[in-house]
Amino acid sequence: MTKKILVLPGDGIGPEIVGQATRVLDALIADHGLDMTYESALVGGSSFDEHGVPLTDEVLEKARQADSVLLGAVGGPKWEQYEIAVRPEKALLKLRSELKLFGNLRPAILYPQLASASSLKPELVSGLDVLIVRELTGGIYFGQPRGIRTNNNGEREGFNTYIYSESEIERIAHVAFRAAMLRDKRLCSVDKANVLEVTELWREVMTRVGKEYPEVELTHMYVDNAAMQLVRAPKQFDVMVTGNMFGDILSDCAAMLTGSIGMLPSASLDANGKGMYEPIHGSAPDIAGQNKANPLATILSVSMMLRHSFGEEALADKIENAVSTVLDQGYRTGDIYTDGMKLVSTSEMGDAVLAAL
Amino acid sequence: MTKKILVLPGDGIGPEIVGQATRVLDALIADHGLDMTYESALVGGSSFDEHGVPLTDEVLEKARQADSVLLGAVGGPKWEQYEIAVRPEKALLKLRSELKLFGNLRPAILYPQLASASSLKPELVSGLDVLIVRELTGGIYFGQPRGIRTNNNGEREGFNTYIYSESEIERIAHVAFRAAMLRDKRLCSVDKANVLEVTELWREVMTRVGKEYPEVELTHMYVDNAAMQLVRAPKQFDVMVTGNMFGDILSDCAAMLTGSIGMLPSASLDANGKGMYEPIHGSAPDIAGQNKANPLATILSVSMMLRHSFGEEALADKIENAVSTVLDQGYRTGDIYTDGMKLVSTSEMGDAVLAAL
Ligand SMILES: CC(C)[C@H](C(=O)O)[C@@H](O)C(=O)O
Ligand SMILES: CC(C)[C@H](C(=O)O)[C@@H](O)C(=O)O
Repeated sequence: MTKKILVLPGDGIGPEIVGQATRVLDALIADHGLDMTYESALVGGSSFDEHGVPLTDEVLEKARQADSVLLGAVGGPKWEQYEIAVRPEKALLKLRSELKLFGNLRPAILYPQLASASSLKPELVSGLDVLIVRELTGGIYFGQPRGIRTNNNGEREGFNTYIYSESEIERIAHVAFRAAMLRDKRLCSVDKANVLEVTELWREVMTRVGKEYPEVELTHMYVDNAAMQLVRAPKQFDVMVTGNMFGDILSDCAAMLTGSIGMLPSASLDANGKGMYEPIHGSAPDIAGQNKANPLATILSVSMMLRHSFGEEALADKIENAVSTVLDQGYRTGDIYTDGMKLVSTSEMGDAVLAAL
Repeated sequence: MTKKILVLPGDGIGPEIVGQATRVLDALIADHGLDMTYESALVGGSSFDEHGVPLTDEVLEKARQADSVLLGAVGGPKWEQYEIAVRPEKALLKLRSELKLFGNLRPAILYPQLASASSLKPELVSGLDVLIVRELTGGIYFGQPRGIRTNNNGEREGFNTYIYSESEIERIAHVAFRAAMLRDKRLCSVDKANVLEVTELWREVMTRVGKEYPEVELTHMYVDNAAMQLVRAPKQFDVMVTGNMFGDILSDCAAMLTGSIGMLPSASLDANGKGMYEPIHGSAPDIAGQNKANPLATILSVSMMLRHSFGEEALADKIENAVSTVLDQGYRTGDIYTDGMKLVSTSEMGDAVLAAL
């Protein structure tokens, strides 16, 4: 049956970078007779501007029907004045939660061609390849009760609930252990079990699930130490697994270590391999519409989609190789530009990848 | 009246490093006729081993009576088997909360003599001087309800409550704005206001308090972006202010950027200048009892104490200058050692500081 992809360009640079990614998809469909189609829809601020909500029921239904989703980025200062419930980010959270995309894979890889772009000293990051597995549909992002209320002293107070059940922890543990089995078999679980009971349970369940994967070396680290260790010696990690909020912070930190945040894709998967794929970076409103943004993270998100949702390993490799080729050829968008390289626009980078495919 | 200091060496390397700090204090008392006395007591794991609790009522009462507290470090793998309520860390949390030490100042300073110890490229960190102001007695660390319970599905779930009232946010805002007024007048407030209602209130209150400090430039940043920006370009920051949990993560990350986590002191202050002073680093059980640990962060904590609790600016400067002198002289403990320097023990470093005073 024809595989259906829902494309959600979103806000800011979203449409530009997704535009290049769909060119790549078009080329693969044409050249390899892939039985896939895609359609686009509004999400985030652009949906809010048109429909008054960041995600319409119709688009959510399309996402449910699709075999996978390709997303650009959402958000921007324009919508910060609105309440959380209608912000662009809410669309992302709702898609993750409604589609049950609890397993978020965020690789932090240093491209050897971009080694000099990292903030860290070369010896600390050369060859860096860490995979952060972030729980994506639970934790404090979705915990109830939440809100702003007036307390007994007549004062307002804001509150959120950080909560995980055993089964939520178990299923993300399996994702992480399975990922570790395919790599260097080392898993570091990050928590704050010396202070927060919710993460005490997290640690207990990780340890228990670990017994099913005796080949994987499981360690535990407090989140403050993990943030430190990522800066001190990031190559000590193979796979890291953590909850929604700590994962948000640590994965951005890890991605930035590589100096190539414009290069990194991510996958958010449900229990059956359906996924939403998006670059790790945001909507970069400051450069939106200027044909300057780096489309490679989104193009690599297509590669992750082919690999994780459609089992098209060879085509996924093909995209990754094409990206590596254009880097070898010296093509660089502004975010990864260094002296002596060829500065190109978003669409020129797309041209280069198509040529290299 | 004689000022009273309670000294709490704690666990791991705590006793060794505090031992050097009290030598410095002794010297200042003797040489400058300071009207100060101190006494020591057990805290953390060492208190647990002796009394079955990490903080006895008697020691808490001594801390209340004291004009300030000097703490080494608490915790270690030995006590990780116990429940959160009796862990060494609990002593720290209880002292902070009972003494109402809500204002935590965590400077991240790069010592020019140690520039090469940073993980970051020299140009990104040379001259780095960021102050992180962390709220220390509220937020998810202390929020109720909390625990592990069985839910309606018969499954266990862990939960904690992230909560701030307006007045809690206001008072830490004032600490941060006043600190910014004494520095470069730039304050970055870190939150996750696009997802968490509690931090939506945080942002609102920060903005309102900011109106009382028109000279300070206030900006807001999401915590994931802040973690990224600390790695990308830490010198963009002057003062950062954030809640208890984000502050825990970001301050460790910032401290590590300087490459001199063994050098950084911290102050935890109440509304009246009473404070608890401690190094930012932990109890380092792996090197405990080996006379290897770096005592400088604890010695500099004495300097912060003299400055913030006792108004002894000149003596505080004197300690800081002595530390700078020993670095100039090339003395290094293992954590900050680089080729060509003089590797010294904990007590030799103490000797060097005393000689330089
Ligand atoms: C936009 C925001 C809600 C989102 C998150 O916090 O999950 C983003 O930071 C991310 O990491 O995907
Ligand atoms: C030991 C621990 C409870 C503590 C904290 O998380 O506050 C420590 O990490 C710190 O930052 O002082």
